[in-house]
Amino acid sequence: MRKQLMDMLEARKDEIIQIRRYLHENPELSFKEEKTAQYIANFYNGKAVEIQTNVGNGYGIIVTIKGGKPGKTIGLRADFDALPIVEEADVPFKSKNEGVMHACGHDGHTAYLLVLADCLIQLKDSIPGTIKIIHQHAEEVPPGGAKSIVESGLIDDLDAVYGIHLLPMGPAGVVGYHAGFSFNGRAYFKLKVQGIGGHGSSPHLANDAIVAGSYFVTAVQTIISRRLNPFDVGVITIGSFDGKGTFNVIKDSVELEGDIRYMTVETKEKIEKEVRRLVKGLEEEFGVTCELTYESDYPPLYNDPELTEQVAASLRSMNEKEIKEVKEFPAMPPSEDFAYYAEKFPACFFYIACTPKGVEKSYFNHHPKFDIDEDSLLVAAKSVGQVVCSYYGLD
Amino acid sequence: MRKQLMDMLEARKDEIIQIRRYLHENPELSFKEEKTAQYIANFYNGKAVEIQTNVGNGYGIIVTIKGGKPGKTIGLRADFDALPIVEEADVPFKSKNEGVMHACGHDGHTAYLLVLADCLIQLKDSIPGTIKIIHQHAEEVPPGGAKSIVESGLIDDLDAVYGIHLLPMGPAGVVGYHAGFSFNGRAYFKLKVQGIGGHGSSPHLANDAIVAGSYFVTAVQTIISRRLNPFDVGVITIGSFDGKGTFNVIKDSVELEGDIRYMTVETKEKIEKEVRRLVKGLEEEFGVTCELTYESDYPPLYNDPELTEQVAASLRSMNEKEIKEVKEFPAMPPSEDFAYYAEKFPACFFYIACTPKGVEKSYFNHHPKFDIDEDSLLVAAKSVGQVVCSYYGLD
Amino acid sequence: MRKQLMDMLEARKDEIIQIRRYLHENPELSFKEEKTAQYIANFYNGKAVEIQTNVGNGYGIIVTIKGGKPGKTIGLRADFDALPIVEEADVPFKSKNEGVMHACGHDGHTAYLLVLADCLIQLKDSIPGTIKIIHQHAEEVPPGGAKSIVESGLIDDLDAVYGIHLLPMGPAGVVGYHAGFSFNGRAYFKLKVQGIGGHGSSPHLANDAIVAGSYFVTAVQTIISRRLNPFDVGVITIGSFDGKGTFNVIKDSVELEGDIRYMTVETKEKIEKEVRRLVKGLEEEFGVTCELTYESDYPPLYNDPELTEQVAASLRSMNEKEIKEVKEFPAMPPSEDFAYYAEKFPACFFYIACTPKGVEKSYFNHHPKFDIDEDSLLVAAKSVGQVVCSYYGLD
Amino acid sequence: MRKQLMDMLEARKDEIIQIRRYLHENPELSFKEEKTAQYIANFYNGKAVEIQTNVGNGYGIIVTIKGGKPGKTIGLRADFDALPIVEEADVPFKSKNEGVMHACGHDGHTAYLLVLADCLIQLKDSIPGTIKIIHQHAEEVPPGGAKSIVESGLIDDLDAVYGIHLLPMGPAGVVGYHAGFSFNGRAYFKLKVQGIGGHGSSPHLANDAIVAGSYFVTAVQTIISRRLNPFDVGVITIGSFDGKGTFNVIKDSVELEGDIRYMTVETKEKIEKEVRRLVKGLEEEFGVTCELTYESDYPPLYNDPELTEQVAASLRSMNEKEIKEVKEFPAMPPSEDFAYYAEKFPACFFYIACTPKGVEKSYFNHHPKFDIDEDSLLVAAKSVGQVVCSYYGLD
Repeated sequence: MRKQLMDMLEARKDEIIQIRRYLHENPELSFKEEKTAQYIANFYNGKAVEIQTNVGNGYGIIVTIKGGKPGKTIGLRADFDALPIVEEADVPFKSKNEGVMHACGHDGHTAYLLVLADCLIQLKDSIPGTIKIIHQHAEEVPPGGAKSIVESGLIDDLDAVYGIHLLPMGPAGVVGYHAGFSFNGRAYFKLKVQGIGGHGSSPHLANDAIVAGSYFVTAVQTIISRRLNPFDVGVITIGSFDGKGTFNVIKDSVELEGDIRYMTVETKEKIEKEVRRLVKGLEEEFGVTCELTYESDYPPLYNDPELTEQVAASLRSMNEKEIKEVKEFPAMPPSEDFAYYAEKFPACFFYIACTPKGVEKSYFNHHPKFDIDEDSLLVAAKSVGQVVCSYYGLD
Repeated sequence: MRKQLMDMLEARKDEIIQIRRYLHENPELSFKEEKTAQYIANFYNGKAVEIQTNVGNGYGIIVTIKGGKPGKTIGLRADFDALPIVEEADVPFKSKNEGVMHACGHDGHTAYLLVLADCLIQLKDSIPGTIKIIHQHAEEVPPGGAKSIVESGLIDDLDAVYGIHLLPMGPAGVVGYHAGFSFNGRAYFKLKVQGIGGHGSSPHLANDAIVAGSYFVTAVQTIISRRLNPFDVGVITIGSFDGKGTFNVIKDSVELEGDIRYMTVETKEKIEKEVRRLVKGLEEEFGVTCELTYESDYPPLYNDPELTEQVAASLRSMNEKEIKEVKEFPAMPPSEDFAYYAEKFPACFFYIACTPKGVEKSYFNHHPKFDIDEDSLLVAAKSVGQVVCSYYGLD
Repeated sequence: MRKQLMDMLEARKDEIIQIRRYLHENPELSFKEEKTAQYIANFYNGKAVEIQTNVGNGYGIIVTIKGGKPGKTIGLRADFDALPIVEEADVPFKSKNEGVMHACGHDGHTAYLLVLADCLIQLKDSIPGTIKIIHQHAEEVPPGGAKSIVESGLIDDLDAVYGIHLLPMGPAGVVGYHAGFSFNGRAYFKLKVQGIGGHGSSPHLANDAIVAGSYFVTAVQTIISRRLNPFDVGVITIGSFDGKGTFNVIKDSVELEGDIRYMTVETKEKIEKEVRRLVKGLEEEFGVTCELTYESDYPPLYNDPELTEQVAASLRSMNEKEIKEVKEFPAMPPSEDFAYYAEKFPACFFYIACTPKGVEKSYFNHHPKFDIDEDSLLVAAKSVGQVVCSYYGLD
Repeated sequence: MRKQLMDMLEARKDEIIQIRRYLHENPELSFKEEKTAQYIANFYNGKAVEIQTNVGNGYGIIVTIKGGKPGKTIGLRADFDALPIVEEADVPFKSKNEGVMHACGHDGHTAYLLVLADCLIQLKDSIPGTIKIIHQHAEEVPPGGAKSIVESGLIDDLDAVYGIHLLPMGPAGVVGYHAGFSFNGRAYFKLKVQGIGGHGSSPHLANDAIVAGSYFVTAVQTIISRRLNPFDVGVITIGSFDGKGTFNVIKDSVELEGDIRYMTVETKEKIEKEVRRLVKGLEEEFGVTCELTYESDYPPLYNDPELTEQVAASLRSMNEKEIKEVKEFPAMPPSEDFAYYAEKFPACFFYIACTPKGVEKSYFNHHPKFDIDEDSLLVAAKSVGQVVCSYYGLD
């Protein structure tokens, strides 16, 4: 069946590209992907699958392909939301939805998976198990769609789950993988420091919130520099220090907002504990009152080492001309809500290189000029197809 | 002549009050006191004086009373601008100019001085010298009116200059004085700290302006705590830390604004030097680029000790029933542009207590409920009249 | 009697100088002034006084001169301890006690007071009251002698108390005074910050006491810069940061020691409260354990304003050729245990200028080259004699 | 030949243990290993090798085994110095050199390599190349022996170099490896901050070095927290803050000493640049003068990925009962001067687990109770022997 699948995919390369271009021209923001979801659902019309729409906290879609024989259940996930970015890429299929752009490659994720799913439907009699195609909404905006899909109960039976991401980290044909923690987890906090305002000439009658806030910023640095294992990854960025006031009036309150990243659950917990401690210390030290909102969103993404090794071995054993190199990639600074699947199920999220041909410097995901080499879409389809075949021992 | 002057003033007590109430109802903001200036100029119509209007950088007025005999020249100064405050005082002559209020007593300063000037005009033949009445605009807003009046060349011949301030620091009848430095000087600074923005997860690719700005705030504290003579007065308030941004984006720049107070010229210079040093250090330390705007405005107000002793002795020797107590007052945290006169001429700026009768807690100057005991106006007129008589040795 | 006293003192000028030189050659450290006390006690042998020795916590001596008539009781205090300094002054009567030196002028204080006391004893029939001569031990070393003398019960009946200090702040003949708070009060603290040691490469397994201690130092600056009234005097010096360790071992604990100065009781209390708060905050913020020892010793010295005004007026009215100028002096940074008398009784502690003749730069008290113009000793004797006469209305 | 070598090693297991015990009883400090070097040199007496002694900056020894056929040259390195530690391990062959202890396993490294070398000498006719046995002095104390051996010119012809370390991170039989950067590099700095001393009550006349030093400590934290790639490893520990002084004297200077760790050359350079910048900034900011000594010693140790993969594969293919598990180990916080070899030649430094049998908690290297399971010595010998055979394609 493997060979058959590869041939089918190769034959439909242009179709994948056409779907991707259609989606690229019609991007929709996270949680507002109504038409995109409709487009996807329509694609499955009349096909021999079960389809659930409006899954989770948005327009999630789950398509269940029951194989001809009983067996394990796997999930294949692609996200389909776009970003609030004005497209600057010079492509003929530029976004028609001004200010919204598929700048993260989710158009490509969805395009390859639709065609791959269709092929698998056609070949389903040979499949000893069940494949759930997860078309996921809202990856870009916390709390994301993944968590709600996991909690929907519709994929409780997964034995493994796979996903890919297009990344301009090499030419089309390169496939990357990373075992263990692979994408940063993330938390958000907002800290209001309430002091007492007063006249600039009389600090003793006031309690300066700017001073307290500033000392907090300096103390926060020690969480990263002295509390974490130097071999772990942790970041605390205070991206907003809202203390705008009048030069000669002591500021009564300031509001800080911060972004926290970590690569392990241990680091996640350590940082939260330390931030909470520092806030308490600040109250004591400066006699201010603090309100802290602290919210963890995407967990660190953990690729099951065994499953990842299987993926790597399987990809390396392919004999398809489009697959030119399979190699380890580094762990990545951003966060990705595929992590929720990986928290619950053995998972492998891997990388499809997509740097456009002939460019000197490619623009990274989320850049207004982000673009891909569309040859990478067939690489994605074949790679995931190969992984599925290997999982079921099909050849 | 002294007795005659006192009697004349006493007889015109109600007129002083009426003038003050008129001005109170018709307040005008600094540099915009067109009608107030017109009212004052009209007051002198037909009187035997020289009058210059539009003096300095606004509506300043100088009225020159030439005495009957040659002699020294003195200045008497009253300011006449109001504040951008919505009046909350419950008085029948409440501000008719919504959002503008004589909340600092300048209405009273002007009222007493008009009537005192008129009396001095009538008695001028007995005066061995020249008296320049300085009706000053724009005391409240830097750069103020005083500096420009001093620079106008019209008062270069002053041998001494006097002013008073109404302060709710005791009942009407109390007169206060303080020799040497008496009101804080003031400077303003704005500091733009320019770093490099970036993604919250990748601090090494950015240069965090919030972090640099916060360390600056903590370092600034040492100027006051370690650089100044502990017996001197110095304050640095950073009233604005404008670093509002997005939680997960490293902030590229922040803007701080600060207010600086000092009681001596030495402290003024020390603080400026140290702020400039810290800014340079910040650039070096954090690799940021700083733009610093540093502007000194009102100098510390220095009351000539000898002149002040004369004033105190002269007031103590009065035998007017309205003057109940003459005592030393402390130096004051605010700033006052009378300081510019005092930089150039021997000067004495003293205090007329004006706490309203029967109140438990009086509201301080600049408060929306600021009010005065109008009996204090005659105290002001008689006190300054007395000081003039003493200066010229008139009895 | 005033004239008689002045003549007697003038006649004994050389004797004062000889006594001073004897004491200068034979200095003794605080609490160890056995021979000095013996010398003083011997001086009063056979004189018509009561004498108490070993008063307080050391060698304090109180000599009671009962006047011929009943009346008020006043105290005159001079201290007699020396300092652990190797004398470098080039004088023929250099210290014979190597490493100990009268570098603060207490030799002069004692010398003038012995002779003045003797004169007063001779004139006592004219004195309408009682004079207690307080020869005080151990001024230099906390807790000092003053506190224990006050607590001895032997001077509970004082109506006023006077003292002077020799200061090289002008030529002999200048006498200075300052009303209100005049010498700083003082406190001491020791802070042990206990963290957890560890290997330099693994901060997450340790808790770095040097980091916690350093953040404490930066936070302490805000007590002075933001908590105190800028018109008040306050200093916190951390004079010791004992964190010596091995470069690649995370330090488990550090010990800080500090010196605190203030000019009012309010500031004293404010600073202590804030230091205690910061220490608590530090524990919370960095998870360290702190041991704080905080001890106030000498209070700020408060000269009773009325008594000081009387002293100034009395001195100004003198017609003695040695008294050339009476003027206000600034408040002083150091601390002085005369403050304990002034806490309990109306007191005036004033200044006798003693800059040696012909020097370009005089060395201040406590300098190894400290020296005085011995003419100042007669100035001291006459000044205090004058104050006594005035107090009792003697002329 | 592989089988033959394994059998020979197995037969000499006891000899390896005896040698190790002899060395354990006779430890010598770095750069003072005279007798140890003599012992090693004696071991080769009469054997068919070239031997160079006193190589590099100490007692280094290089033994050259010329194989029977031409081919590549490899190095096998074992270090032989001990530590200044009083042994607390309860073993019958305890250190006889009080205060010196083989607490890092170098005795075992040397013991296995002597016997392995001897076997290789016996089998040399079968070896298609040259093997250089590097007995290295002074690993523990910077600048170490490795650098000087590399610079000696005696091993310029190496095509690969191997070394191992005994680590109590698992039972005997476990062998670990790590590709890429594997041990931290290290730098040392000493910073003298020179301010101006003064009296505790008068900060304005001094320049407080404790304050400047403390602000430096807080600023240093940002190098780790904001300057480094969060995926990189970097540590700055300030292990000594020598600011001991007198509580009421402003400290004129302090001396800080620090330890710096990093896993890549890029991080090494980044940190040094930033420390130097902060020091300059400190001078500007606080007007102090700084003396900075900054010395990099051991580089980060880089295991050639290809060579490491070969080692891992070769070890996994062994069929020796002593080798129970071959697995990836994490990168390590400490530093190791094998890094100098690895800077110049393709290198692989791997781990031989040695946790003693039956202990609940094993003591880590450098602990006074450090001990090993001596079974691990044969594991080391066989593993390195296997790697050699594989390198030359011998079976």
